[in-house]
Amino acid sequence: MDTHTSLIVLATKNEHKIVEIKAMLGSIVDCRTLGDYLTITVKEAGRTLLENSLAKAAFTFKTTGQPSLADDSGLFVDALDGEPGVYSSRYGKNDTDRIDKLLKNMATKKNRAAAFRAVFIYYFAPQKYEVFRGECHGEIALEPRGTHGFGYDPIFIPKGYTKTFAELGPDVKNTISHRAKALVKFKTYLKRSA
Amino acid sequence: MDTHTSLIVLATKNEHKIVEIKAMLGSIVDCRTLGDYLTITVKEAGRTLLENSLAKAAFTFKTTGQPSLADDSGLFVDALDGEPGVYSSRYGKNDTDRIDKLLKNMATKKNRAAAFRAVFIYYFAPQKYEVFRGECHGEIALEPRGTHGFGYDPIFIPKGYTKTFAELGPDVKNTISHRAKALVKFKTYLKRSA
Repeated sequence: MDTHTSLIVLATKNEHKIVEIKAMLGSIVDCRTLGDYLTITVKEAGRTLLENSLAKAAFTFKTTGQPSLADDSGLFVDALDGEPGVYSSRYGKNDTDRIDKLLKNMATKKNRAAAFRAVFIYYFAPQKYEVFRGECHGEIALEPRGTHGFGYDPIFIPKGYTKTFAELGPDVKNTISHRAKALVKFKTYLKRSA
Repeated sequence: MDTHTSLIVLATKNEHKIVEIKAMLGSIVDCRTLGDYLTITVKEAGRTLLENSLAKAAFTFKTTGQPSLADDSGLFVDALDGEPGVYSSRYGKNDTDRIDKLLKNMATKKNRAAAFRAVFIYYFAPQKYEVFRGECHGEIALEPRGTHGFGYDPIFIPKGYTKTFAELGPDVKNTISHRAKALVKFKTYLKRSA
């Protein structure tokens, strides 16, 4: 039958069930999840924060029929010609690897300037969306510090501070970060169009 | 503008981003996630394992356009007239609560017979699906034992064993469980129709 395939999407978000079912079926079919589909959508998308954010927002709007908000963000390091940038989340297999790689690449660099950039897309009707951008300048620390946040937070020191995002914690980060700045614009937009 | 709403779906599966964005937007809009939509689909669905499984499989097929496999399962306890049954995952706010509640309701019961039942739906083309059922008989332990698995595994002793699913571990569970039995049928089906 041509209706059958070697790829199956598991209709669950229960991680335990995913592990169990993959253990039993994984040898004969490629088991994906709904969450994988968001990732696949984005991997097939563009090479800019805008294109990735738009792909995620459009997919989510199409799937749910509800206004959707997507963010794509990255850390752009001056001495690395803007790397990891749009590839920030694919720079290594986990946060620790990504931070290690970035610090190694920065080992001989004197210019440690960098910026976090975020591009939010608010997709609210078919083919209709608005873009909100935010940027946070700072520099790359010499070693990871702090336990809050995620991603590159332990090695990013925002301008005007001596501590990393991971040391400063959510109250500060959610006020001055790239995402915070973009979301302030989004909130203003929502109030105006309410 | 009537295009805006107080409910927004976040186009991410990154739990850290969800927490951050909710912290910044949560006071003005109700932020949901794609995963929530699978849950909402099922909550609005029927009162049988079959209806729930079908709702999940149909939603996932519609979303991804790929053959989708859903499971709905439950623990049916004889002395509780089949409870928690189809409500197994909603019997309490987490696994510990659900197990506590079930053991309390069983405190005075002598008949501890129970069965795990699973209904898998393989949704492979518009309006086309197959159903695979599996059942595992056993009894409810007097107290939770073991650390493997999830859900009611620590209090379910399968027939022919003295240990709980949570003590027996994945190698045994994935051979004799309700899901294992249903998936054996599914694998046979896949081979026949390949």
